[in-house]
Amino acid sequence: MEIERKFIPPEVPSLAGFSSKKIEQAYISTSPTIRIRKSDDEYYLTVKGKGHMAREELNIPMKKEEYEKLLKKTEGRVIKKTRYIIPLEGSDGLNVELDIFEGDLKGLVLAEVEFPTKEAAESFVPPAWLGRDVTGDKRYHNSNMSKLD
Amino acid sequence: MEIERKFIPPEVPSLAGFSSKKIEQAYISTSPTIRIRKSDDEYYLTVKGKGHMAREELNIPMKKEEYEKLLKKTEGRVIKKTRYIIPLEGSDGLNVELDIFEGDLKGLVLAEVEFPTKEAAESFVPPAWLGRDVTGDKRYHNSNMSKLD
Repeated sequence: MEIERKFIPPEVPSLAGFSSKKIEQAYISTSPTIRIRKSDDEYYLTVKGKGHMAREELNIPMKKEEYEKLLKKTEGRVIKKTRYIIPLEGSDGLNVELDIFEGDLKGLVLAEVEFPTKEAAESFVPPAWLGRDVTGDKRYHNSNMSKLD
Repeated sequence: MEIERKFIPPEVPSLAGFSSKKIEQAYISTSPTIRIRKSDDEYYLTVKGKGHMAREELNIPMKKEEYEKLLKKTEGRVIKKTRYIIPLEGSDGLNVELDIFEGDLKGLVLAEVEFPTKEAAESFVPPAWLGRDVTGDKRYHNSNMSKLD
């Protein structure tokens, strides 16, 4: 089960010193969600159930060759972004995953926080820099952002 | 997590009175496993991790239209079978899923038993009618049987 909230930070914070990954991802299907992702030199297949804040998810590591074969079955654009992991001060282990998009989606910045429980997600008081909560807004699902206009 | 053992019964037992479903399934990918299945009038996407007896699995219901769209991305043959559910006497709730294949694979019969734990799977003493244990035999993975010769 993945339980998360999503935000649009109005400004990009200083990223010096935080770890990051180069991510490329594309969708074989957006309903249901069948996603392939390259994260630096690692490759994953991810399938998600339906829902916004909490949904079932299975993440399977795969080989580069498997990724490249499945890439041919994807639809829409390949999303490219750099993901920074920013520990949330005073949060007992929560991180912000800050995604800075490239290519077609350059200019967009999204922040996600993943929680261990629904209660933790619902009671979370976001720091001001995270900006507007777009957890329920389908436009900011990466699956929808993969669609060509 | 799906934990199961698979057998080849030498003879088909009497099936009168057992519930059954008509199943059609095909594979978008066999490594990793991305399967779509029609079971009577229900449709599912299933993704499985690697492994034989025990592997991670996520099963997502979907709509007929979603199934038909994904069917175009499958490879190999569509496997057709009738699945009978046969309660195992004296087993405390275990069932045999007996698959009788049709079409290209007509003549093949496979039996699967799903277990709640690895320990239950390992200590299971199969009744004689289940026949040869082929749990570790990749040829009898449906994903491999979907491949055209």
